[in-house]
Amino acid sequence: MATATRNKEKTQTDGFSIDTFSVDEKPFYVEVGNEVSLLETAYRNQIPVLLKGPTGCGKTRFVQYMSWKINHDSKSNLPLITVLCNDSIDEDYLQGRFLISGGFQDGPALVFAKNGGILYLDEINKARSDAHTVVYSLTDDRRYLSVPRLGKVFKVPDTGIVVASYNPGYHRKTQDLEQSMRQRFIALDFDYPPAKIEEDIIMHESGIDAENAHLLRKIAEKVRNLKEQGLEEGASTRLLSYAGKLIHDGIPAKDACRVSLLSPITDDKDARRGLEEVLKIFFP
Amino acid sequence: MATATRNKEKTQTDGFSIDTFSVDEKPFYVEVGNEVSLLETAYRNQIPVLLKGPTGCGKTRFVQYMSWKINHDSKSNLPLITVLCNDSIDEDYLQGRFLISGGFQDGPALVFAKNGGILYLDEINKARSDAHTVVYSLTDDRRYLSVPRLGKVFKVPDTGIVVASYNPGYHRKTQDLEQSMRQRFIALDFDYPPAKIEEDIIMHESGIDAENAHLLRKIAEKVRNLKEQGLEEGASTRLLSYAGKLIHDGIPAKDACRVSLLSPITDDKDARRGLEEVLKIFFP
Amino acid sequence: MATATRNKEKTQTDGFSIDTFSVDEKPFYVEVGNEVSLLETAYRNQIPVLLKGPTGCGKTRFVQYMSWKINHDSKSNLPLITVLCNDSIDEDYLQGRFLISGGFQDGPALVFAKNGGILYLDEINKARSDAHTVVYSLTDDRRYLSVPRLGKVFKVPDTGIVVASYNPGYHRKTQDLEQSMRQRFIALDFDYPPAKIEEDIIMHESGIDAENAHLLRKIAEKVRNLKEQGLEEGASTRLLSYAGKLIHDGIPAKDACRVSLLSPITDDKDARRGLEEVLKIFFP
Amino acid sequence: MATATRNKEKTQTDGFSIDTFSVDEKPFYVEVGNEVSLLETAYRNQIPVLLKGPTGCGKTRFVQYMSWKINHDSKSNLPLITVLCNDSIDEDYLQGRFLISGGFQDGPALVFAKNGGILYLDEINKARSDAHTVVYSLTDDRRYLSVPRLGKVFKVPDTGIVVASYNPGYHRKTQDLEQSMRQRFIALDFDYPPAKIEEDIIMHESGIDAENAHLLRKIAEKVRNLKEQGLEEGASTRLLSYAGKLIHDGIPAKDACRVSLLSPITDDKDARRGLEEVLKIFFP
Amino acid sequence: MATATRNKEKTQTDGFSIDTFSVDEKPFYVEVGNEVSLLETAYRNQIPVLLKGPTGCGKTRFVQYMSWKINHDSKSNLPLITVLCNDSIDEDYLQGRFLISGGFQDGPALVFAKNGGILYLDEINKARSDAHTVVYSLTDDRRYLSVPRLGKVFKVPDTGIVVASYNPGYHRKTQDLEQSMRQRFIALDFDYPPAKIEEDIIMHESGIDAENAHLLRKIAEKVRNLKEQGLEEGASTRLLSYAGKLIHDGIPAKDACRVSLLSPITDDKDARRGLEEVLKIFFP
Amino acid sequence: MATATRNKEKTQTDGFSIDTFSVDEKPFYVEVGNEVSLLETAYRNQIPVLLKGPTGCGKTRFVQYMSWKINHDSKSNLPLITVLCNDSIDEDYLQGRFLISGGFQDGPALVFAKNGGILYLDEINKARSDAHTVVYSLTDDRRYLSVPRLGKVFKVPDTGIVVASYNPGYHRKTQDLEQSMRQRFIALDFDYPPAKIEEDIIMHESGIDAENAHLLRKIAEKVRNLKEQGLEEGASTRLLSYAGKLIHDGIPAKDACRVSLLSPITDDKDARRGLEEVLKIFFP
Repeated sequence: MATATRNKEKTQTDGFSIDTFSVDEKPFYVEVGNEVSLLETAYRNQIPVLLKGPTGCGKTRFVQYMSWKINHDSKSNLPLITVLCNDSIDEDYLQGRFLISGGFQDGPALVFAKNGGILYLDEINKARSDAHTVVYSLTDDRRYLSVPRLGKVFKVPDTGIVVASYNPGYHRKTQDLEQSMRQRFIALDFDYPPAKIEEDIIMHESGIDAENAHLLRKIAEKVRNLKEQGLEEGASTRLLSYAGKLIHDGIPAKDACRVSLLSPITDDKDARRGLEEVLKIFFP
Repeated sequence: MATATRNKEKTQTDGFSIDTFSVDEKPFYVEVGNEVSLLETAYRNQIPVLLKGPTGCGKTRFVQYMSWKINHDSKSNLPLITVLCNDSIDEDYLQGRFLISGGFQDGPALVFAKNGGILYLDEINKARSDAHTVVYSLTDDRRYLSVPRLGKVFKVPDTGIVVASYNPGYHRKTQDLEQSMRQRFIALDFDYPPAKIEEDIIMHESGIDAENAHLLRKIAEKVRNLKEQGLEEGASTRLLSYAGKLIHDGIPAKDACRVSLLSPITDDKDARRGLEEVLKIFFP
Repeated sequence: MATATRNKEKTQTDGFSIDTFSVDEKPFYVEVGNEVSLLETAYRNQIPVLLKGPTGCGKTRFVQYMSWKINHDSKSNLPLITVLCNDSIDEDYLQGRFLISGGFQDGPALVFAKNGGILYLDEINKARSDAHTVVYSLTDDRRYLSVPRLGKVFKVPDTGIVVASYNPGYHRKTQDLEQSMRQRFIALDFDYPPAKIEEDIIMHESGIDAENAHLLRKIAEKVRNLKEQGLEEGASTRLLSYAGKLIHDGIPAKDACRVSLLSPITDDKDARRGLEEVLKIFFP
Repeated sequence: MATATRNKEKTQTDGFSIDTFSVDEKPFYVEVGNEVSLLETAYRNQIPVLLKGPTGCGKTRFVQYMSWKINHDSKSNLPLITVLCNDSIDEDYLQGRFLISGGFQDGPALVFAKNGGILYLDEINKARSDAHTVVYSLTDDRRYLSVPRLGKVFKVPDTGIVVASYNPGYHRKTQDLEQSMRQRFIALDFDYPPAKIEEDIIMHESGIDAENAHLLRKIAEKVRNLKEQGLEEGASTRLLSYAGKLIHDGIPAKDACRVSLLSPITDDKDARRGLEEVLKIFFP
Repeated sequence: MATATRNKEKTQTDGFSIDTFSVDEKPFYVEVGNEVSLLETAYRNQIPVLLKGPTGCGKTRFVQYMSWKINHDSKSNLPLITVLCNDSIDEDYLQGRFLISGGFQDGPALVFAKNGGILYLDEINKARSDAHTVVYSLTDDRRYLSVPRLGKVFKVPDTGIVVASYNPGYHRKTQDLEQSMRQRFIALDFDYPPAKIEEDIIMHESGIDAENAHLLRKIAEKVRNLKEQGLEEGASTRLLSYAGKLIHDGIPAKDACRVSLLSPITDDKDARRGLEEVLKIFFP
Repeated sequence: MATATRNKEKTQTDGFSIDTFSVDEKPFYVEVGNEVSLLETAYRNQIPVLLKGPTGCGKTRFVQYMSWKINHDSKSNLPLITVLCNDSIDEDYLQGRFLISGGFQDGPALVFAKNGGILYLDEINKARSDAHTVVYSLTDDRRYLSVPRLGKVFKVPDTGIVVASYNPGYHRKTQDLEQSMRQRFIALDFDYPPAKIEEDIIMHESGIDAENAHLLRKIAEKVRNLKEQGLEEGASTRLLSYAGKLIHDGIPAKDACRVSLLSPITDDKDARRGLEEVLKIFFP
């Protein structure tokens, strides 16, 4: 599915109204390392960027932020076009289709090739092999999109960049990313934010105070350490915000932590027991 | 298949008549822990909720009850839209389709995005990967549904919440829920109800007296203990109600228990023998 | 394929002519245990029923008999609608389809939801997952069928019951029945009929005398005992009737037994040798 | 593919011209045991028959002969309808299809249900599961074919019999025949014909003299014995006739035997070496 | 894909213009054993022929030569119709299809059934199971093609023969040829041509002199011997001709041998090292 | 997807405008061995060429260069037609399709058969089996393309050559190239360029000075050596250019190397640790 953050309605030109896809309000994002300048440099040099990291650690938010920042700095209004990759997305989907009612509905890759901005391929390792061919031509040094149905080849403008993401932690072997795809990107490693930044995010997202944010973050730290002992994945910053919201709205902290930080992330009985032990430390 | 509890006929607007989907009569539901207040808080904070637990322990009934309660407390008439997830449900199914006869039939996700209420994704682990993309956008902090066929993006109203369920006990490895899906939900753990509550349910559903309800519940307890010894799943509250109905209608208790509590749940000869031993304890 | 026993032609209403599906002549069926009263009680209480047992032991005949008996006792004319489950039966098949020639052809589930009677799902373990969703809604305490193509929801009348069957003996692992399906049914265990009853059936079906029927049944007993020693499945009552018919029509008993009771049931050389040994006992 | 032996052109009634499908000339067939009377008795009693045996041992010829004999003895003209089962034959294929040009093309099962005769399901173990449902209804004691597209149910006439074949020797596990299918048939075991009969067949088919026919049969005997030592399948009677024809047309016997009896039946080097040893015995 | 060698344009009758498919110029082919007389005898006796042997050893050339020779000897103009078997070739493809523009496009099997000649099924082991049914009817002693879409059955003329090929050396287990298919053919074993003949072929194809041809053949001999030591397949005569052409056009012999005889046939490092050793012997 | 390097717009003839596909500007390519003269010789002798080598080592650039050189030397304007092989490319795709709007859209193989030039089959091992049939006929000594939909056979002009590529290093077993395909090509082995040449390329592509280019190449050397110790694939020349561009645009060298040379090529923790060790050597 191709989606985008919308802010205002404009005239539709071909199927989708592109202008509505830009990120107008500054998203809340706290820089952790040099990821902002790296993506800006890649953008200037038209180098595709791959974001690697666990679920819910802020990759998508970062892309939204960069979309906003690029537009803000360059006083432009370039779209952010998101494609959540999966088995049913093929070449036609990305390029576009003739409508039965007449006219041609531009696919997300064509919207990108016409307008520039960021084409964000979320969970790119789940894309079908024929979607790869579209990505290859866009990330080639020639940077074009061929649309046989229209009999045309589109050159990606210099203001366009392909960004992709995936989570190397738990995907299946069959979803491993091929070297011929990998080596078209530079890759930025993402992880959960450092303590102070993550607490700021939790406070901002849920409205709880610094003490509770600190407590939640400390619990998350313990939970994430269990990952070394067989837990598939640690609790994400998003789940910490959920817990914060529940606490802020009156749910006892222990209950909020159990339903937000423990129960969602595993069905394994041993792993769950380990998580309950963590909870006991903080709520004896 | 998307279904809903109907109570009265109204004018159809687009394919489905939404108003007919609300739960009008108070469903019989006995609260076990704090699940009601947790779901109400999640609803107020627009946090998606996952219900985890064995077959027939009351997850669906709980959702019906919450749909009724939310409407009752807020004097609203929001729909309960149920999607039983499986291999044949794709993006188009959830969004909607153009009809050959003209017009657009809203899919269950679009009905939800237009009207709010509860979108209940039963057995979400069986959903196809392209259905995931729809769920992702609905459970995102942006909470929207993009419908390319209509060239429109719909914002979910604040009165809408996504609830999903699955049974972690016996599903196949290939149907394991991915972390990127899991960590979009807080999760409530469900199990068979405590003794007293379960007996009340049995009496209410089947019409038998307290003594027989107690007997059935005691048998179920023994059966469920066998789960530790290789039985795939214990007898559900629903099966206990079936046994109660048969007894109430004249079937000898032993026969009713065999066809309701033993025969349905296993084909394994050893497991069956163990179950017959349980029966002998109560009907020597 | 949805099929039904027909006896007289009536006016067609929508695609299928429902009235032609009732069982008019009393089928030959000899009750073995309390299966008749159990199904009658289940029918009165609208509890779905699962018939478990080996090939050819009389499950289908039992359903035909019960269809006739319910109609006979209640002086009604309810249909028996049979669906032999397999990989190609999907939601649309069960609900119905618009015909190119115009009009809507009701699928077997819709015929059932409109008319009541027995919906017989033969070999339910072979049904596709999206057929499950139809079965779930019909066996739910809400008992309805949603037909999106018609934009309508149908309530199953109180005179309707879902009956399913399967053979737990030899089906493949991939065709195992899920607990969420199993626990919607009470289950009746079927097996080959007791000696006296089976001999009566053979005589009635084939026309041979009691002595030959006894002989055939004795051979079958030995054959069925080999099941413990690796034979996949014993000889069914149906095969015994075949042998009886051949004998009645002049084929020597030994030849009739070999082609009816030995050759069909196995290709395994060791198992076959065991079967030939059995034959030698009776025809030295 | 449904095929039939044709002898004369007649008026086409619905898609296929049925009358052209009967076997007019007496096929060359030498009875080995009591298979002729067994099939005649099964035909009179409407019992389906399964022919089990290795490739090219005469199963198909036997069916052609019986089709001719039944017509000859009863002075009728019933068709022989052959379906070579495979993955692409589904319910629609067997029942029939509406033609784009208008009209309905009867499928082979419908031709059978309308006209009787023999419906020959060759290699039935390779049929798809939804073809099974058609076979089940035809081999049921109710003997009917339901054709939903026509909204009609057809009763098979008393002059119709279902005959099926398969080779238990080498088919894959996934193509094993289910008990619920097997136990609808009596089964006749086929094997290569006895020495004298096989030599007669070779002479008749190829025109060579008795001495050469004897030689070929002796070689085949040795080759077939190797089956016990790992050869997948022995040389068929058909291959012996091929060798006979080549010899009759001037090819040296040793060369004819190599290309007809050795090279076709195996690629395995060890097995091939064993076969060459056999050849050396006869042509030192 | 069905293809044919064309030499002159003629009027098109039904989709394909058959006459254009005959082999007019005598192909270069050197007989190795008695394969020519064996195929001629099989042709006269209408026995299907299977060609077994490694890649590029001359099977296809042999078929072209025999097509030319049969036409030349009988002063006829029969087509050579080639079908390269694969997963996407089904019954319809072989029989033919109605065109949207009207008319019926004869498939290769129908072209053969109407015109005779050689139907060459290249790599027959890769054919789909429903293509088998077409082959079965053509190789049956009845030799016909049934085309249900036309409502007609076509008898193959006496001038038609089915020839098939496959490489027993390296195909996958799932592509093994079934006995019921194998035993419809006599089989001719092909291998690389004897030394003198192969050198003649190389000289003829590439234009190099006898010394170089001898050198290339000697290298190929060593390479083929490595097959016993794990190499999947030896260098084909075709690759030898490639090497010859490169040498003839100025490429140093060692380089020509490396790119023609070593690099194409393996990716395995050990096997490649062995091949390089071979090269060192001849170019120290 | 079929793509081509475009330089100027011309009139469209049939779907694609072929003239726009030629490479007009001389691509930057530095010859490593004798690959240029080998491909030129193959082109003159119409021998198909396979390029084998790791990701990003310059195979595609070489093809672009050769396309330009052949045109430049012969003063012609032959197209370069690229097909990135994958699961969704079938026979129809390669040959062409009738458009709903009327007319026939030539597929890339037909464009090649009509115009000559280079048909570049990138990652040929990923092509479907029915695409193979098209490649076979084009690489046959007959060199033709049969297009059944047009009822025509096209002869490839003498100015046409098929070039294919694949990476033998890491593709899956199921994507191994069959001998019958391999042995239609001569094969050129590609690897990362020698030190001096690679440094020139990096300087040319990124604008950095010789010292930095030397540093990057030295790091790549160490990284590539790790391939012997379990790393799937070394860093490509393309990734080195990415690193150069980032450094040139102000990113510290260590950061540029990490995101360009380390993070993209592996997710394996041990391999990553080894890569970080390499980085420490150069940036202690």
